[in-house]
Amino acid sequence: MSLLDRIDACRRWDPSRYRPFSVAGQKVGWVTHDFARRLAEFPRAFRVSDGAVKVAADLRDFAARSAATAEALEKLRGDGTIKGWRNEPYPVGTDFYAAPLMQMERAAVPLFGVRAYGVHINGFIGDGANLKLWVARRSRTKQTAPGKLDHLVAGGQPLGIGLMDNVVKECGEEAGMAPALARTARPAGFVSYVTERVEGLRNDICFAFDIALPADFKPVNEDGEIEEFYLWPIDQAIARLTDTDDFKFNVALVNIDFLVRRGYLSPDTPGYVDIVEGLRL
Amino acid sequence: MSLLDRIDACRRWDPSRYRPFSVAGQKVGWVTHDFARRLAEFPRAFRVSDGAVKVAADLRDFAARSAATAEALEKLRGDGTIKGWRNEPYPVGTDFYAAPLMQMERAAVPLFGVRAYGVHINGFIGDGANLKLWVARRSRTKQTAPGKLDHLVAGGQPLGIGLMDNVVKECGEEAGMAPALARTARPAGFVSYVTERVEGLRNDICFAFDIALPADFKPVNEDGEIEEFYLWPIDQAIARLTDTDDFKFNVALVNIDFLVRRGYLSPDTPGYVDIVEGLRL
Repeated sequence: MSLLDRIDACRRWDPSRYRPFSVAGQKVGWVTHDFARRLAEFPRAFRVSDGAVKVAADLRDFAARSAATAEALEKLRGDGTIKGWRNEPYPVGTDFYAAPLMQMERAAVPLFGVRAYGVHINGFIGDGANLKLWVARRSRTKQTAPGKLDHLVAGGQPLGIGLMDNVVKECGEEAGMAPALARTARPAGFVSYVTERVEGLRNDICFAFDIALPADFKPVNEDGEIEEFYLWPIDQAIARLTDTDDFKFNVALVNIDFLVRRGYLSPDTPGYVDIVEGLRL
Repeated sequence: MSLLDRIDACRRWDPSRYRPFSVAGQKVGWVTHDFARRLAEFPRAFRVSDGAVKVAADLRDFAARSAATAEALEKLRGDGTIKGWRNEPYPVGTDFYAAPLMQMERAAVPLFGVRAYGVHINGFIGDGANLKLWVARRSRTKQTAPGKLDHLVAGGQPLGIGLMDNVVKECGEEAGMAPALARTARPAGFVSYVTERVEGLRNDICFAFDIALPADFKPVNEDGEIEEFYLWPIDQAIARLTDTDDFKFNVALVNIDFLVRRGYLSPDTPGYVDIVEGLRL
């Protein structure tokens, strides 16, 4: 086992199993051939051909596309095709900063291979060899990655809220952190990947934030998504990342990015170039 | 002018002007069609076809390939085709950590679009809004980028020395830094690009290092490559990077990576995703 195994877990997909998914003439995702056949049952929302799935072109704006596709997705929810419905609308588009072309229920996003965004907050105390990293254990009842190790705080990026505001919201819900402290989190870039998971094709950008916490900070989970928190010496976190896949797949990637940025990995060590290249698409 | 202009300056190349350059069956670079016609004059070293340039396959090992190609490159130096000869052998290969397939004079590397490596050291004092960055002005007599702004210390990565050892060597030569202080530099990933410059096709990985310096550190250039040093408030460096192309093209890229990693750019600002994606190939 090695850190490269964690990287490889974030780039497993076979494009030949997919056809492009487009909205308003723009390619925004990937759909499996199997799922495409299901979508053909909803011709008002989706136009399916051998080479592509498109949202019907006569649906001319955000509202029309969102409503017609939502109706189809509700039926696919009803028959169990879409699992873990969240009631969280995600934006669908090609540019994070532009108005989205439509919205889509979060649980359906991986089935369409649509790019999704999240905020991942590395919480720690100290520096260098003495740094200790806050690690969370996800609830065993979560839909995705139950029981896996996670960041102190992480969450999806829904429609209609800024990234930093989402960080503050998630820091409150997941760790009971006061807004003033949460606002000291500093952005640090992102990791990105396209990889096949049980829930579908994950095509994500995870925005990384670092927060240096006071030594007496104690996280308190307020939304039931976290079972337990640990404060680990960085070497312990590195060993766990290297030797096991106990961390959720994308959390491991953000953690490795943290190790790279803060000098815990040496570029003189074979594999370093591959690891760093694997952090973003 | 914007930081995205600095990114764009590191991804300007037109593949249709090039054909692949291979050694021992492995693609290691790109050669312009014009330069390929020149290389056809040296059939003992290079086999040139319409679609490719290859080092002659009967040159079976590192020594034979290096010697035969060096003879050809000496002639191209003699007629002025290769400018700025450095007498520095660079490794040629596909994997930074594997034994190279051959070596090649540094000045010829961009003419073959071969991947080259360098170390770029961000020297600074303080942190956050109070951080001050050391900036160097390159000598006006340098072959590449004369008079441009540079890191406190940066240098190419020659054959036969580790990255950290090269950092220590360059910190001594370029800034008069004691080895014990230079060894406190911490690796922080790399930027990479393929871009056309006056010297040829630059296909580089720049390993980034950060060094937090004592407030009383004063750099002294010992190899004549630096004309002057400045200690700038980070906001002044950001403004210069944003509004001008005074920084050397790849130094700007490493500086932007520093700004991203250390939270000086906000992911809520349009353009951020493009900027971060532009930091590595």
